[in-house]
Amino acid sequence: MKFSHIIVIGGSAAGVTAAMTARKFYQDKSIIMIKNVVNVPIPCGIPYIFGTIDSVDKNALPTNKMMTANHIDVLECEVASIDPKRKVLTTTSGQDLGYEKLILANGSLPIIPPIKGIDLKHVYPIVKNLDHLRKMLEEIKPLKSFVIIGGGFIGVEMAEEIKKMNPEAHVTIVEMQDHCLQLVYDEDLSALAEQALLDQGIKLETKETVVEFVGHGDVEGVVLKSGRTIKADCVILGIGATPNTKLAKEAGLKLGPARGIEVDRYMQTSEEDIFACGDVADKISFFDGKPSSLRLASIATTEGRIAGFNTYKLQREFKGAIGVFSTYIGHKVFAAAGLTVRDAIAKGYQIVSADSEAVNRHPGCMPNAENLKVRLVFDKQTQILIGGQVYGAVTGGEFINVIAALIASKAKAEDIVLFQAGTHPALTASPVAYQLVTAAESALIQFNQL
Amino acid sequence: MKFSHIIVIGGSAAGVTAAMTARKFYQDKSIIMIKNVVNVPIPCGIPYIFGTIDSVDKNALPTNKMMTANHIDVLECEVASIDPKRKVLTTTSGQDLGYEKLILANGSLPIIPPIKGIDLKHVYPIVKNLDHLRKMLEEIKPLKSFVIIGGGFIGVEMAEEIKKMNPEAHVTIVEMQDHCLQLVYDEDLSALAEQALLDQGIKLETKETVVEFVGHGDVEGVVLKSGRTIKADCVILGIGATPNTKLAKEAGLKLGPARGIEVDRYMQTSEEDIFACGDVADKISFFDGKPSSLRLASIATTEGRIAGFNTYKLQREFKGAIGVFSTYIGHKVFAAAGLTVRDAIAKGYQIVSADSEAVNRHPGCMPNAENLKVRLVFDKQTQILIGGQVYGAVTGGEFINVIAALIASKAKAEDIVLFQAGTHPALTASPVAYQLVTAAESALIQFNQL
Repeated sequence: MKFSHIIVIGGSAAGVTAAMTARKFYQDKSIIMIKNVVNVPIPCGIPYIFGTIDSVDKNALPTNKMMTANHIDVLECEVASIDPKRKVLTTTSGQDLGYEKLILANGSLPIIPPIKGIDLKHVYPIVKNLDHLRKMLEEIKPLKSFVIIGGGFIGVEMAEEIKKMNPEAHVTIVEMQDHCLQLVYDEDLSALAEQALLDQGIKLETKETVVEFVGHGDVEGVVLKSGRTIKADCVILGIGATPNTKLAKEAGLKLGPARGIEVDRYMQTSEEDIFACGDVADKISFFDGKPSSLRLASIATTEGRIAGFNTYKLQREFKGAIGVFSTYIGHKVFAAAGLTVRDAIAKGYQIVSADSEAVNRHPGCMPNAENLKVRLVFDKQTQILIGGQVYGAVTGGEFINVIAALIASKAKAEDIVLFQAGTHPALTASPVAYQLVTAAESALIQFNQL
Repeated sequence: MKFSHIIVIGGSAAGVTAAMTARKFYQDKSIIMIKNVVNVPIPCGIPYIFGTIDSVDKNALPTNKMMTANHIDVLECEVASIDPKRKVLTTTSGQDLGYEKLILANGSLPIIPPIKGIDLKHVYPIVKNLDHLRKMLEEIKPLKSFVIIGGGFIGVEMAEEIKKMNPEAHVTIVEMQDHCLQLVYDEDLSALAEQALLDQGIKLETKETVVEFVGHGDVEGVVLKSGRTIKADCVILGIGATPNTKLAKEAGLKLGPARGIEVDRYMQTSEEDIFACGDVADKISFFDGKPSSLRLASIATTEGRIAGFNTYKLQREFKGAIGVFSTYIGHKVFAAAGLTVRDAIAKGYQIVSADSEAVNRHPGCMPNAENLKVRLVFDKQTQILIGGQVYGAVTGGEFINVIAALIASKAKAEDIVLFQAGTHPALTASPVAYQLVTAAESALIQFNQL
């Protein structure tokens, strides 16, 4: 029977990172990565295949190349079962593989809602498989009327990219919440994102759900709960994903309250020698330790770095998911870290929030000057930063990571007021107006008045 | 006698911020700002007046407007003396002004070296006064051969901007150190900055000093220590500034070891009711508490926020100067925070440093993709981050602030490895390759091997 000290199941962000981390710290261990998708896409890059990049192959995750460079063997096959007692897994072709440590990083599966007509042609889930995506790109290119179900990140990015692919296309987003991106941004920022979509001719049907897809063989329309039918020769499902736990469940591993594999802070499952990371693993919130349904590549890589390291040394601890997001709609950054005002209140925090907006150059006549708006959310009791949102200039893509670093370090408003920022006329706001500091100062004034 | 609860002397970054901070927290106090320069420039924007902006007025700091908006009175005059016992200051026109709290934010003065020929025409220090700068811009526009003394930030930025003003101009930088920007970057990054200057046709004379300026009325040449003479019809002095302590010294205030006004962590001087902030105040290093000669607008504003707040409530403490710099040369960002490898070793640290370079988009074919290189410097003993350098993509301007936040929070390599970064195809490196995390992981591997 073939044997490897470490076997990683999954070849996307979590699996790749877990395997490479294990290789870095355990040079003398044999490592095999098993992946069931031959050509893995960069997950966050999927929407951009359809417009900006206009290529499937350019969005390939160079998994095999990275594995080879790190002396990790790759097996392209499907795992049928795991026997944690014997520490053996069996592939669908009947091959047994022994392991000392196993890392489950086999991701999530797109949610396919049980709606009538879901099986019609040209109704597509987003599948993390380049061959599927290649077929989808070819098939949808000539189509004209697109309905996207779900106004989260993948939905709004797909809508914009389909407009880039075909500026004449009719594109409609159907979202059950009051606003697109509502789970990530406060209402006013969601409204700005929606305006950026409307400005590109994308139609929005919020507070709406789909009751049926209609058509004869090919999809022809989407029937909404309100009774209207929208013409559609293509439907794209962007309503999220669910942890791919079948293999783990059948192996007897415990599942957690957020429907993923139960893991502790070391990413260890209920079986001592099996770790899980990425979308398949259950998560807790950084803020209150409660179950979290966040699924992000950035969380997956952090968990992969923990799982890969902890295989032979239980040391790295996951502090819980902060949730740091960013996207770029209509040439504006929309980014968020931690809790929105709405989230924080829902979790029972008493909060103070403050906004600050300034041009990201000084003086404002410097080239490429754009406004950057920042919102900070503090816990009133402790004055600790628990959330931030950023809107506007492209520099916001890294600005949100300054906020993420401050959240991770549990910085207080006072610490942020005294933050020594690097500022430069061609690169940032002025030190007098640096948005992070001025927003924190506004929050402090509110604390003083309370 | 006129009286104000708070008087601030100085109308640039520190003074403006101190006055506005005091106003925010002490609504019932009268505040006067005194400035001796009518038209104050944005200090960091000065080089850009000559090329990118091509305007003096567009680089004005809107001091008076900001003061009026904050109900702060502005007096344009020169202070002749301060009597700390009577708590009265006297202007050069003989007016007495009483105060309860005084904030000295009267900055620094350019260093004018006692070199023969320094008084020749067209030898210019950089003076923070728009009227001086307007005259300078008019006078130098037709000139052809520029020699810039000092290859620090102001020197290299002036060199590049003069090339933008007049692409035909001959521009030479004379720098006494081995490399330009040597006090801020390690040698390899300094070399990249030098290459970016050379690529624009700027000549560099490093390891050189000036022994004489020659000419007849107008400057005509610069004589170097090596014996050569460089043709020059304009010389610009960019060799730093010295704290403007005359007023404080004459008032009996103690000076500190770095030649500024002695202050404690509350920015309080040796006189209880007098505070100092910005370039005029002495500084200590964040890292070892030793005297620091850093003078930056971003430090000045932090100190201003402390001094302004502490006037009536001794609460905010300065943790010491971290030193966070950035500039933009040849369309590349050069940024640094905290200690370089060289600085850290000079201070007696045993260090581990690690580099990571990746494209700031994912996949790399996304628009505007550029490489971003990151260096992290850790204290070997504690594994705490003590420095970082960033080179390349324009996103580095905020990336350095992620590093600054981590330094300020005394993050360890392990914390940074588990940093949950916000990543997006159009905005950042991939989460697998995010430079901060991969550099920290490299450092950890070194720690493990030591």
